[in-house]
Amino acid sequence: MTAQNHSKTNVSPASKNQAWGGRFTESTDAFVAEFTASIQFDQRLYRHDLAGSRAHARMLNKVGILSTPDLEAILVGLDQIEAEIEAGAFDWQIALEDIHMNIEARLTDRIGIAGKRLHTGRSRNDQVATDIRLWLRDQIDHIGHEIRRLQTGLVAVAEREAETILPGFTHLQVAQPITFGHHLLAWFEMLERDYERLMDCRKRVNIMPLGAAALAGTTYPIDRNYSAELLGFERPARNSLDAVSDRDFAIEFTSVAALLLMHLSRFSEELILWTSAQFDFIRLPDRFCTGSSIMPQKKNPDVPELVRGKSGRVFGHLMGLLTLMKSQPLAYNKDNQEDKEPLFDTVDTVLGCLRAFGDMMPYVQTKPEKMRRAAMQGFSTATDLADYLVRKGLPFRDAHEVVGNAVALGVQTGRDLSEMTLAELQSFSDTIEHDVFEVLSLEGSVAARDHLGGTAPNQVKLQIANAKKLVST
Amino acid sequence: MTAQNHSKTNVSPASKNQAWGGRFTESTDAFVAEFTASIQFDQRLYRHDLAGSRAHARMLNKVGILSTPDLEAILVGLDQIEAEIEAGAFDWQIALEDIHMNIEARLTDRIGIAGKRLHTGRSRNDQVATDIRLWLRDQIDHIGHEIRRLQTGLVAVAEREAETILPGFTHLQVAQPITFGHHLLAWFEMLERDYERLMDCRKRVNIMPLGAAALAGTTYPIDRNYSAELLGFERPARNSLDAVSDRDFAIEFTSVAALLLMHLSRFSEELILWTSAQFDFIRLPDRFCTGSSIMPQKKNPDVPELVRGKSGRVFGHLMGLLTLMKSQPLAYNKDNQEDKEPLFDTVDTVLGCLRAFGDMMPYVQTKPEKMRRAAMQGFSTATDLADYLVRKGLPFRDAHEVVGNAVALGVQTGRDLSEMTLAELQSFSDTIEHDVFEVLSLEGSVAARDHLGGTAPNQVKLQIANAKKLVST
Amino acid sequence: MTAQNHSKTNVSPASKNQAWGGRFTESTDAFVAEFTASIQFDQRLYRHDLAGSRAHARMLNKVGILSTPDLEAILVGLDQIEAEIEAGAFDWQIALEDIHMNIEARLTDRIGIAGKRLHTGRSRNDQVATDIRLWLRDQIDHIGHEIRRLQTGLVAVAEREAETILPGFTHLQVAQPITFGHHLLAWFEMLERDYERLMDCRKRVNIMPLGAAALAGTTYPIDRNYSAELLGFERPARNSLDAVSDRDFAIEFTSVAALLLMHLSRFSEELILWTSAQFDFIRLPDRFCTGSSIMPQKKNPDVPELVRGKSGRVFGHLMGLLTLMKSQPLAYNKDNQEDKEPLFDTVDTVLGCLRAFGDMMPYVQTKPEKMRRAAMQGFSTATDLADYLVRKGLPFRDAHEVVGNAVALGVQTGRDLSEMTLAELQSFSDTIEHDVFEVLSLEGSVAARDHLGGTAPNQVKLQIANAKKLVST
Amino acid sequence: MTAQNHSKTNVSPASKNQAWGGRFTESTDAFVAEFTASIQFDQRLYRHDLAGSRAHARMLNKVGILSTPDLEAILVGLDQIEAEIEAGAFDWQIALEDIHMNIEARLTDRIGIAGKRLHTGRSRNDQVATDIRLWLRDQIDHIGHEIRRLQTGLVAVAEREAETILPGFTHLQVAQPITFGHHLLAWFEMLERDYERLMDCRKRVNIMPLGAAALAGTTYPIDRNYSAELLGFERPARNSLDAVSDRDFAIEFTSVAALLLMHLSRFSEELILWTSAQFDFIRLPDRFCTGSSIMPQKKNPDVPELVRGKSGRVFGHLMGLLTLMKSQPLAYNKDNQEDKEPLFDTVDTVLGCLRAFGDMMPYVQTKPEKMRRAAMQGFSTATDLADYLVRKGLPFRDAHEVVGNAVALGVQTGRDLSEMTLAELQSFSDTIEHDVFEVLSLEGSVAARDHLGGTAPNQVKLQIANAKKLVST
Repeated sequence: MTAQNHSKTNVSPASKNQAWGGRFTESTDAFVAEFTASIQFDQRLYRHDLAGSRAHARMLNKVGILSTPDLEAILVGLDQIEAEIEAGAFDWQIALEDIHMNIEARLTDRIGIAGKRLHTGRSRNDQVATDIRLWLRDQIDHIGHEIRRLQTGLVAVAEREAETILPGFTHLQVAQPITFGHHLLAWFEMLERDYERLMDCRKRVNIMPLGAAALAGTTYPIDRNYSAELLGFERPARNSLDAVSDRDFAIEFTSVAALLLMHLSRFSEELILWTSAQFDFIRLPDRFCTGSSIMPQKKNPDVPELVRGKSGRVFGHLMGLLTLMKSQPLAYNKDNQEDKEPLFDTVDTVLGCLRAFGDMMPYVQTKPEKMRRAAMQGFSTATDLADYLVRKGLPFRDAHEVVGNAVALGVQTGRDLSEMTLAELQSFSDTIEHDVFEVLSLEGSVAARDHLGGTAPNQVKLQIANAKKLVST
Repeated sequence: MTAQNHSKTNVSPASKNQAWGGRFTESTDAFVAEFTASIQFDQRLYRHDLAGSRAHARMLNKVGILSTPDLEAILVGLDQIEAEIEAGAFDWQIALEDIHMNIEARLTDRIGIAGKRLHTGRSRNDQVATDIRLWLRDQIDHIGHEIRRLQTGLVAVAEREAETILPGFTHLQVAQPITFGHHLLAWFEMLERDYERLMDCRKRVNIMPLGAAALAGTTYPIDRNYSAELLGFERPARNSLDAVSDRDFAIEFTSVAALLLMHLSRFSEELILWTSAQFDFIRLPDRFCTGSSIMPQKKNPDVPELVRGKSGRVFGHLMGLLTLMKSQPLAYNKDNQEDKEPLFDTVDTVLGCLRAFGDMMPYVQTKPEKMRRAAMQGFSTATDLADYLVRKGLPFRDAHEVVGNAVALGVQTGRDLSEMTLAELQSFSDTIEHDVFEVLSLEGSVAARDHLGGTAPNQVKLQIANAKKLVST
Repeated sequence: MTAQNHSKTNVSPASKNQAWGGRFTESTDAFVAEFTASIQFDQRLYRHDLAGSRAHARMLNKVGILSTPDLEAILVGLDQIEAEIEAGAFDWQIALEDIHMNIEARLTDRIGIAGKRLHTGRSRNDQVATDIRLWLRDQIDHIGHEIRRLQTGLVAVAEREAETILPGFTHLQVAQPITFGHHLLAWFEMLERDYERLMDCRKRVNIMPLGAAALAGTTYPIDRNYSAELLGFERPARNSLDAVSDRDFAIEFTSVAALLLMHLSRFSEELILWTSAQFDFIRLPDRFCTGSSIMPQKKNPDVPELVRGKSGRVFGHLMGLLTLMKSQPLAYNKDNQEDKEPLFDTVDTVLGCLRAFGDMMPYVQTKPEKMRRAAMQGFSTATDLADYLVRKGLPFRDAHEVVGNAVALGVQTGRDLSEMTLAELQSFSDTIEHDVFEVLSLEGSVAARDHLGGTAPNQVKLQIANAKKLVST
Repeated sequence: MTAQNHSKTNVSPASKNQAWGGRFTESTDAFVAEFTASIQFDQRLYRHDLAGSRAHARMLNKVGILSTPDLEAILVGLDQIEAEIEAGAFDWQIALEDIHMNIEARLTDRIGIAGKRLHTGRSRNDQVATDIRLWLRDQIDHIGHEIRRLQTGLVAVAEREAETILPGFTHLQVAQPITFGHHLLAWFEMLERDYERLMDCRKRVNIMPLGAAALAGTTYPIDRNYSAELLGFERPARNSLDAVSDRDFAIEFTSVAALLLMHLSRFSEELILWTSAQFDFIRLPDRFCTGSSIMPQKKNPDVPELVRGKSGRVFGHLMGLLTLMKSQPLAYNKDNQEDKEPLFDTVDTVLGCLRAFGDMMPYVQTKPEKMRRAAMQGFSTATDLADYLVRKGLPFRDAHEVVGNAVALGVQTGRDLSEMTLAELQSFSDTIEHDVFEVLSLEGSVAARDHLGGTAPNQVKLQIANAKKLVST
């Protein structure tokens, strides 16, 4: 929902200067002109609209529809317009509806009749579909880079904390000791899937609608493979109706973004828990936090809270876009104009959240002694005792019950398993011997989970090496 | 997603001038300051923030916490700030985070130490919750007015077209003849429910959080009933934790808006169908339509298409807000800052769509001959024939089968029931007599549905009279 | 998504015994018959379908369309069918599509030609709309009762714990001391709004579609006010098209349910936090928890976790229903058959979650010493110190900064404000005197927030008295 | 929301026979047992749970944890259980919570102590995650097959109708003539993207969680690569915390399904329009339609209507699953149990809709004369006239205005462009000559759009050849 006004937008509707006025007997109602215009937000696409126009002009020239002098005039004119826009000097007009008509009108002002020839063999329908794909392709690359940056930061912290022990939770109850490096690598894996999905989505974004014209193609002998090559598209779309009405790429991108934000909301939840006085596992630098106007002691984890909240925003955009397309008959309908704002806002939100996390995560400080103390509460090595009993010959289910009884005593007497005497432990099973106390240590517990994907520091280090390879590709 | 920049926002973060800097050892990261600030969008609340501050100051004075000279200085200062903002001369600062701190800082600049006393006994948590409720209450009244205006327009057209016959559809198949007035009154009823829901929601919006302070209330002897009276609230909220963390009012409002937009999307779908060359039941004035940059013949029903598309936007905001609040522990969390943009955009969208429909609907022109012709296709009086047979003594289920067989002949020979001979009709049931042809007429069919809620012009007129009463309350 | 099979459903499609076969030249494809049938789930409406049929028959008799012997035969037949269904002896047929045709076919089997007369003057369109409203009205009453039961349980615990002190949180950081009774009353307030919304929704559910027939009303001289009276409806729907195509009531109900589940997800989040080893504020009885198949020590708060998860289910149904209705032209479309399963599942989910909470909450045990200890961490009385300074004459903003500096010392030296010496405190502001230590006590802090809505035990008790009145109405 | 009860489920909760009872002092509340159990719906996973157990047992044997006699007993026992389940003879117990405990308890009943050894080195957390991935992988393959079948049917109709002309629409207004084959290929392309997305999703589904145990891995020397090989997984998951808490695969699948249903809702909308009396472009076989209980003439396109409606269901499940995972801290939480029903229902819905369309589409009959007549209305060749003028030397924008004026005359006099005299046409531009009438013909118009992706029959045939290659891979 960010507004990027490169220049001021003029809202006074011109009379009858629309691109389509011929058959109309009255000019557009002023409120309707503003209500239906897209120039307020689609001006953001100017760079990609200009790029599309340049490629279209070159293609028209190549196939003999546009003369070389006309081409040259157009290219010069488009460059001048780009400069005007970037200087904030372009006069956007609501009456000209959208980015396409604003630029074309300005071009014709500047270079005369050649400007009117640029729209030969294309329509705004294929033009906007091309613009938005070019724009989104750039954003995907930017987002991909930010994911890699965050992953790199996580791996660095994971490496530093490969042996730091904290309790692993299930149901927010202490479950088993794990290493903090291992925990961070779980986040790394989620981001890796997000990255993969983004790249899969990119393949489908990178298909060119240009040449579909209004819906059926055009009567000019256009060369779509050439346009696609100039614009770096993988290939032209194979069906003109589909090309102008497809918004899958926007929905798929937004669903990828929704999953990413869901992950960031999970990381955020954990950061918020860990910075609470009750957990107190980590410290966030002051520069990523804010305070309270009334409570002088407060230092609030605003960044993760806000990121957690922003998941709703992106989930909402996904639902909005799905609803938008639901039941639309082919081909283009005006409804589709509503695809841009949620897409723009999704991109802005994703980039903002990734940047905030990418900047912050390398500076998270752990409090290892607090983590350790927490891991010693809650009988976190109970499973290790059960496994010990299995190795002594008990079936797992019976071992589970033995340990359950020992835990019940612990709850009653306020002691951890490692704080019981050997005699007490033996009262639950006489197979228990003195070596049990190694098994009940935190280091023993994590080191024993020494297989692919396990929490043993050995395994964490192997996964760190692997992660470094992944992020460098 | 509209940006309303009353004045330019200054993005350079100030060092350590935050309202809460005491315990912090480094100042906020510049990107984080911008990422977590809300002043870019919450400046829109300035009028209601000022109103809340005035009432708070008066209350503090009444209970003896604020001296009368201080009160007077504050009131003058707030008035001056309002004038500055409305003149576009206010210098909004990102570094001051939000509307509240921007205004308070400016007030202190202007009036000195009295300005610092204004925040006594309140927190930004209860302040923002109060602002947004005051703002939304105004918007609800505005929306209610626009619903009533659209309903009034519909009733006028319904009255004009109380006897115009068109086919009623189920499954988009011709079902039975109805009157256009009756059809429009169906829309009226939907809007009536939307209006009722809006008013029910207003009751819950109109509760005052002010006085909840950060979460627990305040140690000052505040008089919340007095503040509520000054601000026109029904009553103060009964629980301070709830008051600062409740966002139900925003979600309930958005769900009311989603239902309204769902209805408008249904009206839109029908307008789009009716203006297609295939239906051709109505004509929309040119000033509510636009054309094509490539197809010179096009006149597109942009307004209903865009409104149909905008339903997705509001459904998305509803989902976003529900997600936002999901699983948040009490009391205020920073996530809640994300409530504003979807709420603002929902209000803007609803008002824009209602205005467009309210302006357009009175000028919809019907094409009665086209409607009539369509009603004569598709065996729309088949049910009348079945009912006729029932009156002659057949059980309904048997009558249904007789007519089904007659229709099968009609499909085969390309004729409507009214185009068959008496002999042909009698071949399906010998109880059929010459009076059947009255039953098979369109006028006979609609006139016969003459009971509360039926499509008979008589009933439509009764409902119009009733509708006029409803909208005038 | 619960299946309630009162009897076995026979899936073999009958040939040509549909209610509408006359004009068709081939019978329905077997897969299509199953795919489009609703009898698998709408049989759940049987009791309300029978009630609607009884009222319709009585009305037909009253206006002279149905003879008294026919009426009596029908009433006896319907009673026998009800008995058959409840005995699990009814043979539901997929080939008969839905609950209406299954019952009507069975009625005609049983009582002959009179059974065929029952469908006079109605259609399945108004019939199903009537059934579902009757059913939902009952469910709303049931849900309302369960909300009241849960509220009553909360009030009882709040009364018991009106003076128990725990830390109030904002941003999950310790903010100010509050009382547990006050916290529970925040939940009470949320439920109170849910109850109000439910009752507002009930008004709109309790409108009768019957008599709208297929879409336009009927040619029979029906008396809709009489039917409405028999069925306890507030009034008949005013427009027949609207009556058969309106699904607002289901969407509004689901949005009410979504808000309720959002609240329950918030309560759940807090219960889960509070039962964690880190917070350890409360104890849930074993009978509401489960364990782990592998970790013998685990006692998991399954009920709140599952309830928290179920919020997604209901949010999803809301989205599904909004999507369903989006852009549907009038009047009835087959899409609408999809309204039932999400509505049924929403009701089942809401009732299950309310029951679980209603059963569990009265047995939640607090751990006051743990709560108290937590409230003493995190400088929870810092605001009290600031307010103290204001009473000594400092402007609030300056007082805030003084306390911020004191907190910074506390963070550095690991001590709470109440653990500093008077001299230390005075080093930040020489207005501090010995009476400051009363202000820094937990009891002093909560007792001082003694105004409407504040956390002082006095105020909590007043609100409890008020709450008791509310739930008894 | 389909219930698949392979056998009756016994709801009486057993006392204390849970897998985890050791530390508990009271048995689970009967309602809670039912509320938290998953056996009512997860029994559907039995085949994949058994497959996972077999692989786990073989792996345990390979690494020396399980003796060969124990392995053999287990394998025999699991086969017997599979047979019992398939015979409907298995006694599912609510008291045993879920599919895993039900099967394990039965195994121990049958084979004694060896059964208790099967759970060594795994947890229900990794077990259920494995089961659901195995199950979903099968369903994805099934869905992929159904997409290919529907695409094949579409290509066959497209080939038959490669030269059939109908109007192409934008904004539901006649735009330009197109071929029906071309239109169907637009649908083909959408399905092709759906297929691609499904296969991309499959890669991420096919990763093995087994071996992650409860969250941290296990102390047994398990060989996860061997288990993965036995179960056909691409590889084991790299991080145990992630493996048990990841539900991305379900959400990604559901988002793929939502896009697919969005497409099917678009096809449905068009089928519904095309079967209306107003469009009347196609005929659906009677066996895919149903009638009305009251209107004997009705033949309703139930299948597309219902499919259109079912899009809401799947959008809702997507929203529900995203909400479910939002903000969950690691690792497994009970909330996740709620992933199954929406996933099951999504699969059932997708398969049902694809089957219905796959069966129906090859039997859609076109009405070419109706399509042709519609294409001649609405000035569908206006763009061709503009292009003609461009070829005569006018800039496109000027040509557009000339044609707009000619159309205005046509609207006024009720004639198409091709029905005007040469003199009339020349009155708008004197460059128009007699050859204009070829350009204004429907065949001329479609044939002229003869480039990659255009609607010319030549191009359609090329795309058909290409489509046949795609579906055969």
